[in-house]
Order: sequence, then C-alpha cells, then structure tokens
Amino acid sequence: MSSLQPIADLDLRRATLCQILHWLAAGRVQPGRLAEVYLQAIERINPQLNAYVGLSPALMLEQARSAEHRRRDGVIGRLDGIPIALKDNFDIAGWTTRSGLPGPGVMAEHDAHVVARLRASGAVLVGKTNMDEGALGATTHNPHFGPTHNPHRQGYTAGGSSGGAAAAVAAGLAVAAIGSDSLGSIRIPASYCGMFALKPTQGEISARGMTPAARRLDTVGLLARGVDDLTVLLQVLAGYDADDSRSRRRRVALSPPDWEPGKLRCGLLSNLPALGVQPEVVDVFEAALAKLDRELGECRTVDFDDWHFARTRRAGFLLMEAEMLGTFAVQLADTEHPVSPQFRRLLDYATRKTAADYADADRVLDTATLKMRRLFAQIDVLVTPTTPQGAFPLDGPAPDTQGDLTSFANLAGCPAVSIPMGTLPNGLPIGMQLVGARGSDLRLLELAAVWSATLDAAPNYPVIA
Amino acid sequence: MSSLQPIADLDLRRATLCQILHWLAAGRVQPGRLAEVYLQAIERINPQLNAYVGLSPALMLEQARSAEHRRRDGVIGRLDGIPIALKDNFDIAGWTTRSGLPGPGVMAEHDAHVVARLRASGAVLVGKTNMDEGALGATTHNPHFGPTHNPHRQGYTAGGSSGGAAAAVAAGLAVAAIGSDSLGSIRIPASYCGMFALKPTQGEISARGMTPAARRLDTVGLLARGVDDLTVLLQVLAGYDADDSRSRRRRVALSPPDWEPGKLRCGLLSNLPALGVQPEVVDVFEAALAKLDRELGECRTVDFDDWHFARTRRAGFLLMEAEMLGTFAVQLADTEHPVSPQFRRLLDYATRKTAADYADADRVLDTATLKMRRLFAQIDVLVTPTTPQGAFPLDGPAPDTQGDLTSFANLAGCPAVSIPMGTLPNGLPIGMQLVGARGSDLRLLELAAVWSATLDAAPNYPVIA
Repeated sequence: MSSLQPIADLDLRRATLCQILHWLAAGRVQPGRLAEVYLQAIERINPQLNAYVGLSPALMLEQARSAEHRRRDGVIGRLDGIPIALKDNFDIAGWTTRSGLPGPGVMAEHDAHVVARLRASGAVLVGKTNMDEGALGATTHNPHFGPTHNPHRQGYTAGGSSGGAAAAVAAGLAVAAIGSDSLGSIRIPASYCGMFALKPTQGEISARGMTPAARRLDTVGLLARGVDDLTVLLQVLAGYDADDSRSRRRRVALSPPDWEPGKLRCGLLSNLPALGVQPEVVDVFEAALAKLDRELGECRTVDFDDWHFARTRRAGFLLMEAEMLGTFAVQLADTEHPVSPQFRRLLDYATRKTAADYADADRVLDTATLKMRRLFAQIDVLVTPTTPQGAFPLDGPAPDTQGDLTSFANLAGCPAVSIPMGTLPNGLPIGMQLVGARGSDLRLLELAAVWSATLDAAPNYPVIA
Repeated sequence: MSSLQPIADLDLRRATLCQILHWLAAGRVQPGRLAEVYLQAIERINPQLNAYVGLSPALMLEQARSAEHRRRDGVIGRLDGIPIALKDNFDIAGWTTRSGLPGPGVMAEHDAHVVARLRASGAVLVGKTNMDEGALGATTHNPHFGPTHNPHRQGYTAGGSSGGAAAAVAAGLAVAAIGSDSLGSIRIPASYCGMFALKPTQGEISARGMTPAARRLDTVGLLARGVDDLTVLLQVLAGYDADDSRSRRRRVALSPPDWEPGKLRCGLLSNLPALGVQPEVVDVFEAALAKLDRELGECRTVDFDDWHFARTRRAGFLLMEAEMLGTFAVQLADTEHPVSPQFRRLLDYATRKTAADYADADRVLDTATLKMRRLFAQIDVLVTPTTPQGAFPLDGPAPDTQGDLTSFANLAGCPAVSIPMGTLPNGLPIGMQLVGARGSDLRLLELAAVWSATLDAAPNYPVIA
C-alpha cells in the first residue's frame, strides 16, 4: 500500500495511539500486522507479566481482518484497527466477566456501553486484563489469577485495581486500555507503571456493563501511552446513556475552553509528608514543579487538615463493601469456588453495619464532595503526586494510603489526569496528578499535554519487553 | 399613593402572587397593609386550621415596613412585600427548626438557601407551617402540634407532609409557601387543597438548610394560588449552590423552549384503577382529559406493570428512615420529649436493616430512575391524577398509596406540576399532575398555565375563610 519504510515491531509497541493512527492512515502499517505484532508479544511476555486473564487470538485476528476490509473500502471509525484491552469488569457479549473473583464468572449477554462504542469505532478488542479481587484493592495481587508484575520490575506491583491494564499498555501488549476508577484504580497503576491515565468527570462515560463497585464513585478509566490518546478515547467513549442512572448529558465541552497559562490558578497541598507521601516522592514532585515553574500560574496552598483521610477512606470502602454483598451475591454463595479469606473479611465487615451506618458514610462522602466543590471555586487545578509511593514488592505489605490522593476526584465527581513526572531513586516511575472542576476534562488534558512536554518524563522502556 | 380604589381584604387573600405584584406596583396596596390583612386573618383563622406552628407578627410587620421603605426608594426585589410561608423544616436564622418533632427544636444559626434568596428578593416571611413528624407521612396529622385541617372541610386532612403550607395558601394566610417534596410532599397537599405546586428538577433549587429526609429524593417544593406564581418563585429561588452537594449548574433554561402544542407527546397511565386510583378520581381525570382534548397532542399509553409500587415505595422509605436515624439522633435520644410511637416504629424498622439492605434499596431506586429516563425519551409529559384519592377524614386511616403517583418524579429527578383539575362528588378538590423530563420545568409550567385556563378548575373558595 505504501512505498515508505515499514515500522519496526518494537516501535509499534512503544508508539502512542495517535502515532499509530497516523501510520495506519499513511499505510505504513496494516491492522492485520498490528494485531499480529501485539499477539506475538502477548504470547511471549504475558506469561511473565500476567497482565491478561482472558484472550481470544482468533477473535482478535478476525476483528483485525474486518478492519483491513473497512480501510480498503475507505469507511473507517475513529479507532479503526487499534488493539485495545479491557479490564475484566467490563462485559463483552459472549465472554465471561469475572471481576477478579473465582468460579465460572458471569456470561455477558450484552456489550458494556464502552465496548459497544469501541466496536463502533473499529477498535480491535485484545482481551481481558487482570485486577484485584472485586476491584477491592490496589495491587493486582489476585489470589485466584495470580499477581500482575510491574513491567519495569518483576516482583513489583503494577498497582491496581486496573493493574493488568497498566502493565499491558506499558509493556506494549495493547495500545491503550479501558479500566475502572472508583477511588483511583486507573491512576494508581498508571503512576506505578509510568503511564498516562484519565478519570473523566463522573457520568461523562456510561458505566453500564461495568461491574459496579460503589455507584456514586464509579467511573470508567482510560489508560494510554500519551495524553492525546486519552483525548481521542474520551471523544469516542463520552456521551449520554439513558440506561445508566448516573450518566449525564454532556458536561464536557466539545472543544477545550480558551485559557491563558499565566492566569492559571493552581492549588498545591500544604503538607505532603503529613499525608503519608514518601520523601523520595516529595523530592521528585518538587523537582517537577520547579521545571514547570512558569506554567503553574498563580499557586496557592490548599489545606486538607480537616479532610479526615481515614474516616473518608472508611466511608468509601463501606459503600463498596455493602454494594458488593449484593453485586457478588452469587459468587459469595458459591462454596465450590470460595472467594479469598481477605475479600470475605472485608465484606463481612459490611454485614455487621446497619442501614444507618451506610447513610452516615454516604453523608461523610457528601461532606468531602462539598469541600472539593468549594475548592474549585478558588482554583482551576489541584496538583499532587498521583500516589504517595511508587511501586513496591508484591511480597511486601500494601500501604493503606495508596488511594488517599486519588479519591478526592471520585468524591467530587471531578476529572483527574495522571502523567509521569519523573523517576524515583530506585529507578521506578511515579506520576503527577491534575484534578480539575467537573466538566473541565479537555482543559485538563490540554494542560497535561503541555506539562508532559515540559517534564519530558516519559518512562524508561520497561525491563520486560 | 394612588387615586384608585383600594383592594378589599378578601381579594388580597384570594389573589395570585402575580396579581398582588401588579397591585403593589400600581400602588393600589402597600406592603404594610398587605401584611396586616394577612396577619389579622391568621389570628382569626389559624386557631381553627392549625396551618402555622410558628409565627412572629412583630418580625413580619418589621419586614413589611422595610418593604415600604424600599418601595418608596424605588429599589425593590422580585417579591418585594409578598408574605410567604415556610414549612418548619427550613432554617430561618434565629428561629428554631422543629421538622414536626417534639422538644425544643434546633436553633438555626443560618438562613436556608431559599430563605436567604427570599430575603434578598424582598419577600416578607410570615412563619413556619405545620408538617408530618419528620416529614414522614402525608396527612399533617402531627402528634405533637396537632392536625392541620383542610380549609375546604374541617376535620379533613390537608395532605402532607407540607399540609400546613397548602392550608395557609388556600385559606389566604400566605400568598405562597415553600415546602419540601421527597415523594410528593408538596403536590399531595396541593391536590387535596385545590392549589398549584411545583416540584422542580432535582438540584435546581438548593436544599441547603432544609432538614434532609432522603437526600437523593429531596427537593424544595413551591406552592401557590396560580401557575405563573410558581414560575416567578422558581426564577427567584433556582441557581447553583456550591454548598449543596446535590445542587447542579443550571439545567433549566432561562426561558421556556419553543413548543407546538399539536406536537406534544403525552403519556397516560394504562390502568389507573389497578394502581389504586379511586373511581371518582378516574371520572374527574377523564372529564378533564376530555376538556383538554386538542391540547394533549399525540397521546400514548404508558405501562407501569413492571414498576413494583410496593417495593419501590418501601425502598424510598428505607432510605428516609435510615438517614433520619442520623438526622434526628438528638431528638430520638431526648427521653423528656419522646417522638411518637408511630415515628419510633418506622425508624426502628431501619435499625434492623443492614448496610447491604440500604445498598439494595438504593439500587431498586436506580431501576425506577432508569425506567423514567427511558420513558421521557418517548414522551414529553406524563399526565396523571396527582393523588389516587382526595382529602379524607383526619380520624380515619391514611391510604398507603398517597404518594404512588407523585414519587415517580422524585426517583427520576424530574420536574412535576400539580394543578386543580376539578371537584370530586363530595365537593373537595383534586389535582392533575404533569411530569416532564429533567430541566423542562419552564415548559411544563407553560403547559400547566394553558391547561389550567382550559380546565378553569380553580377551587371553590375554602369554607374556612
């Protein structure tokens, strides 16, 4: 099709979605070859990484062939031929959804809303990625499917609960991935794996067909190798869905509003170490802020002393645990395929709580929501490290602060982007988070694109490649 | 001030808010006289009706004097000088909020959002109106403050839980009233008392400073003697409030969208008797529809067979009861001023329910929300009787279907208007309800104005006057 040089396999696996779209458009790569390159890499690398827990090579190649036909006919969708992975809490018609739980899973009759949108855009569905059991955790150390390893260091967590998604994209086993984010589940693994992630404004992308964790916090999460990739994915997936009770008519403008970087009002947390942020993370964050200097606009310190992290975290978890007793009722009753003792214990906690406790927890979250609303009357963007720590060994304990800096955005329904901001002394990546007011997704992505270029902190190529 | 004839006292008490605004503008009545006429009527009639449970004549006259000064200076608000009543679950700074519960109540430090808006518009606050205990009921047969009587018939319920508000407006003891509506609490008493009511799109009027019942269902409710009065009140009170977690940026357009009556898509419930609507109510409803005939546009039958009224009703009540255990914790622990055995029993039910039961109930409401969303993709307005029955004797049992036709709108966050549609064989009024899609409040009010004119079913003057 083209007289130009073909692209090397490894370049196809390291390029951004936008770059690959250009190569496809220029005929420098065909959907069929793209699928084969990714499939071969998966066969070779997934046994070490354990990023995927469900694959169907035949189906993937079939979709790629259809994409070739469409391209030949000149009638293509926005993501035509792009291999995209899905976390195993999204329904794909004809596949079982397991959400990290043991047993036969639930055979999906219908595509999740995002799956239907991906299909309509011509994307090639690669497979289902590993996750924490029931999405209740942030390590992807799954007791039934095994742990997912961080592509930057074997034996280290990829983060979670969308750890398989982040590992797959970082290791070049998918061009992008769709995960979920209820307290930080897409941003935490993005931070640990050196990837880019967007948690959109709540209700902007329909969560229908995604296994619920806590409905008031749940959002679809996007993960990719570049900021612009997130923008394209958002444009494809966003939109009102009358069948999702939390879907909202478009809040995100079709194009980002004009803004002058010099007039940006930027909020910074007052005391990161007191919030459990590790000293080496503070160092990388401060170095990144120094680099961004003139792009930060007017900075002000935001005081979170009255936030009550532990209480807020507990309230969020109670909502999840109580809802999961219903969501996973069948799996919890399946004695042949018992859930892990740890998962059982977390959910047992909720069985001892009353309806009034649930209402109280929901009100605690309301208080947190209000604080965020008031905050965004004063600032345009809240800037934090995405996580208080980088990836840690899978055989060590998981800190309970993993989601403390990400959960703000879920409570307030705000959009949040995570971009790589640098490398920790141990050589592992760490992310910076930008949180904006509801509906400011595109502006936030534009800001993230500018800052990413300045920081130039794209992660080192993963060790496992 | 004017050479024109002054307006008779009784006319001042029967006129709509808009009419009174005209008279004030024309100088045919002064705020001071208006306040005195209403105050004298209250002194004479409230002992029979028991519409008000809190009054401060001195404060009312003081506000009226300020209104006179402003009018003399030519700097007036939208509702300047208009006497307006507030249900006793709204905070007025310096007053106690009792929400129908016994004991000393809670001294309010701040005005509720709507109270602050009313003050800013120049309205004269008359007093606090009676309600069901904790807003948990629809009869205003309050065990601590006594029952409110229907102005059309002594010994009959005014409906509830905003019964005092409806009785006050119907009997000419306030020009309009602000109540609350979580399952129908403003529309039910409007129907029984022959008044006009609006439950706006959820989040359109801030509920800050209103005692919560169930936050996902709670809305401020407006009650008046004419449709246009509701439009004016909505314009004054609507708007985003960063301090209310459920407040939303303006969904309701500033002016109603164009619509052609002939193109209206109108939904009618398929089997009213099966839903517990009494035969005489069906007769009045059908006669009203016959009168409206050409204004109904294209009618289609809406099937609610899969609605599960009892299950949905129970789910809504569980949310209320569970939240009230927290909201009224102080009052429930006050052994000197015990709540009624009935109220205690309702809340005790919730203490035996688990967090998972609450989550399940919340999901039942999600299902109902989705059904309503899908419905409004097919129709513009759902038309029903407001209540399955008219007012009944205070000493008889209360039917448990009272809120079945009104609760739809709360579940879906939709606006709903109630207008008088006729008179039952026993001489008491009954309302018609118009429910629209979210954000269609102004269009719904415009429709209600046209239909009200056609029906010409303004209630007979109340017996107690």
